[in-house]
Amino acid sequence: MPPNSYTIGIDLGGTKVAAALVDATGRILFETSRPTVPPEFKDADPRKLAKPSPSDVKLHIAYVINALADAALDCASALDKKEAKKLLGIGLASAGPMNIGKGEIIDPSNFNGWKKVAIVKLMAKACLKRGLKVPISFQNDAIAASLGEGWTGIAKGKQTYVVVTVGTGIGTGVILNGKPAQSNGMGSEWGHVISNSFGFLTSADKPYDREVEGIASGTGLVRQAKLRGLEFGHAHEIAEAARSGDKNALALFAGASEALAGLFYTLSLGFNPEVFAVSGGMIAIQDLFLPQAIALYNEAICVKYPSFKKQIKISKLGTKAGVIGAARLPRLEA
Amino acid sequence: MPPNSYTIGIDLGGTKVAAALVDATGRILFETSRPTVPPEFKDADPRKLAKPSPSDVKLHIAYVINALADAALDCASALDKKEAKKLLGIGLASAGPMNIGKGEIIDPSNFNGWKKVAIVKLMAKACLKRGLKVPISFQNDAIAASLGEGWTGIAKGKQTYVVVTVGTGIGTGVILNGKPAQSNGMGSEWGHVISNSFGFLTSADKPYDREVEGIASGTGLVRQAKLRGLEFGHAHEIAEAARSGDKNALALFAGASEALAGLFYTLSLGFNPEVFAVSGGMIAIQDLFLPQAIALYNEAICVKYPSFKKQIKISKLGTKAGVIGAARLPRLEA
Repeated sequence: MPPNSYTIGIDLGGTKVAAALVDATGRILFETSRPTVPPEFKDADPRKLAKPSPSDVKLHIAYVINALADAALDCASALDKKEAKKLLGIGLASAGPMNIGKGEIIDPSNFNGWKKVAIVKLMAKACLKRGLKVPISFQNDAIAASLGEGWTGIAKGKQTYVVVTVGTGIGTGVILNGKPAQSNGMGSEWGHVISNSFGFLTSADKPYDREVEGIASGTGLVRQAKLRGLEFGHAHEIAEAARSGDKNALALFAGASEALAGLFYTLSLGFNPEVFAVSGGMIAIQDLFLPQAIALYNEAICVKYPSFKKQIKISKLGTKAGVIGAARLPRLEA
Repeated sequence: MPPNSYTIGIDLGGTKVAAALVDATGRILFETSRPTVPPEFKDADPRKLAKPSPSDVKLHIAYVINALADAALDCASALDKKEAKKLLGIGLASAGPMNIGKGEIIDPSNFNGWKKVAIVKLMAKACLKRGLKVPISFQNDAIAASLGEGWTGIAKGKQTYVVVTVGTGIGTGVILNGKPAQSNGMGSEWGHVISNSFGFLTSADKPYDREVEGIASGTGLVRQAKLRGLEFGHAHEIAEAARSGDKNALALFAGASEALAGLFYTLSLGFNPEVFAVSGGMIAIQDLFLPQAIALYNEAICVKYPSFKKQIKISKLGTKAGVIGAARLPRLEA
C-alpha cells in the first residue's frame, strides 16, 4: 500500500450523497455532496412518493447513480494528473438491506419502490463514462462509520467496539476483533433489539414499536407519540415540548433513555467492547436522553460486572465517520 | 491432523463434571461423570454454602480439580496403550465469567466464593500427577456447545449459527463466519439481552429481572413468580401449576415465550444466522413456551424480513453438545 495514496469515500444517504477525497492517514482533502432527490420529485404528491410508479423509480435510480458518479469525479478531479495515478479506489457505503458480495441494494427503507438494484455495477459504468476507472468497494453505512471511528476517531486502535448512530433510525456498527460482525453481508442491525417484549405482537405496527429503534430514534419518538394520541411532525418538536416541561414529551424521552441504556447493556454483555461511540442526528438534542441513558447503563452494568463499566463517548468524527470509513474500504481489501 | 486420533471433552457444570472420549468424527467412545460438590458439603447449612469460608473454598477447588483430572484419566484409560499415543489433548468447557487466554475462572456464579482460579494450570498439574500429559484447551461452555452442534449436530456445516441453552440460566453460543463471536475471551452473553427496558432500574434485583434470562430461564421463572408474590421452588412446579390451568403460572410462561421470541428476533437481525439450535434443561417442559416463542418470532420477523424466517430447531445433541464441542477444541487449535 503506497503511503501517499488516495481513496474516495462515498456515503449514500436518503437525502444526499456525501463524498470525500481522503489520504492514507484518513485526512479529508476535499469534500462534496449531491442531492439524491430528483428535482421532479420536489413538488410531487407525498402519497405518490410513498408509492412511486415504475417510471418514477427508474428516474430516481438514474438520478442517484449520476449523483454518485459526479461526486466521485469531483473528488478525483481534486487531484492533479500526477497524483491521480495514486487513486486506489472508491468505497461506497449505503443503508441496508443489501447484498455486499453482489454489490446490490435490496428494497432499502431510504428509497421507496427500489427493489434489487445493482448499485455498484451501475455506478462503475457511470464512472467509466466519465473517464474514471477505479475499483469500487461496498459496505453497510453503519459498519463504514465504525471503520471511520476506528481509523481516526474515538475508537482509534481498538479491536472490538460499537458505533451507535441515533438519528432517523438507529444504526449499529460492530467491529469484533478487528472485523465487521456481519455474516453474508447482513446482520449487525442491533437497532432492532427488542426493548420491550411484553405484548410483542399486540401493537399496531407490531415489532417495530417494541424495538430500540422504534422507541429511541427520531421516527420512533414521533411514532411512540402518535401511539399515545399526540401529533408531532419531528423529534425536534418533541424536544421543544420537553424543554418547556410537557410531561408527555418528557416521558417519551425517558422511554428513549431506558431503551438506549438497554441497548448498551445488551451489546456490552454480548460483545464486551472496549468503547461505544455515539453519533447521529439526535446528538443535537442529546441532553434530553443520552446522559440519562449512560447513567442508567453504568448503574445497571455495575451490579454484576463492575469491570464492564464502559466509557460511552460521543463520536469524534460525527457525520464524517461514514465517508472516512467508506474511504478506508479500498485499503482494507487491497 | 491424524484422522484416527482422539480427544477428551470435559464440561464443568455446577453439580457435575461430564467427560467423554471422542474420536476424529465427533463420535463419543466412552463417557463418565463426577460430582463437583464435595461430600463434606452435602449436609451443610445452605447459608454457609452461599457464603463459604476460605477453607471451604479451598476444599471445594481441590475437589473439583481432582474430579476433572480423574474424569480425564478415566477417558484416557479407555484407550489401549497403542491408541493412547493418538490422544491429542483435552478440551475443557466451563461457565463464565472467565479469562480464556489465561485459563482462569473468575468469580463464577456456579461456585460460590471462588474468585480467580487458574483452573487450566491446576488441572494440568493434577493430570500430570496421574501420568496424563496432554495439552488442555479452554472455552466458555455455551461456545463449546455451539462447536458441538456445528461439528455433528443440528448446525453441521453451517458458518453462522446460534445455540440457545434454556436451563437454570440462558446461555448463548454464537458462531459467526465459522468463529466464536467473542472478544478477549468474554462476550456472547446474549441471555442478558434486556427484554423489558421500561423501569429498567426500579425493580428489586435491578437489571436481572429485565433480562431474557431473568424472565425465561428456570431461575428467572421462579424469581418472576416471587416478584408477583407466588412461591415456587422450581420451574417444574410452575409447569405443573400451568398444566392444571393456574392463570398466574400460565402468565409466567407467556412472558417467557415473549422474552425468548424477542431474543431470537434480536439475534436474527444482529447476526443473520443460518439456524438456531435450542437446548437445555427446560426442553423437558418445552411445550409450555417454545412453540409459542417460535410462532411469535416467525410472525414478527416476517413483517419486514420474510427472507429472515429462520428454522429454530431443537438441538440434536442435547446435553452432550458441551462435551462434544469441548472435545473439538484441541482440533481447532492444532
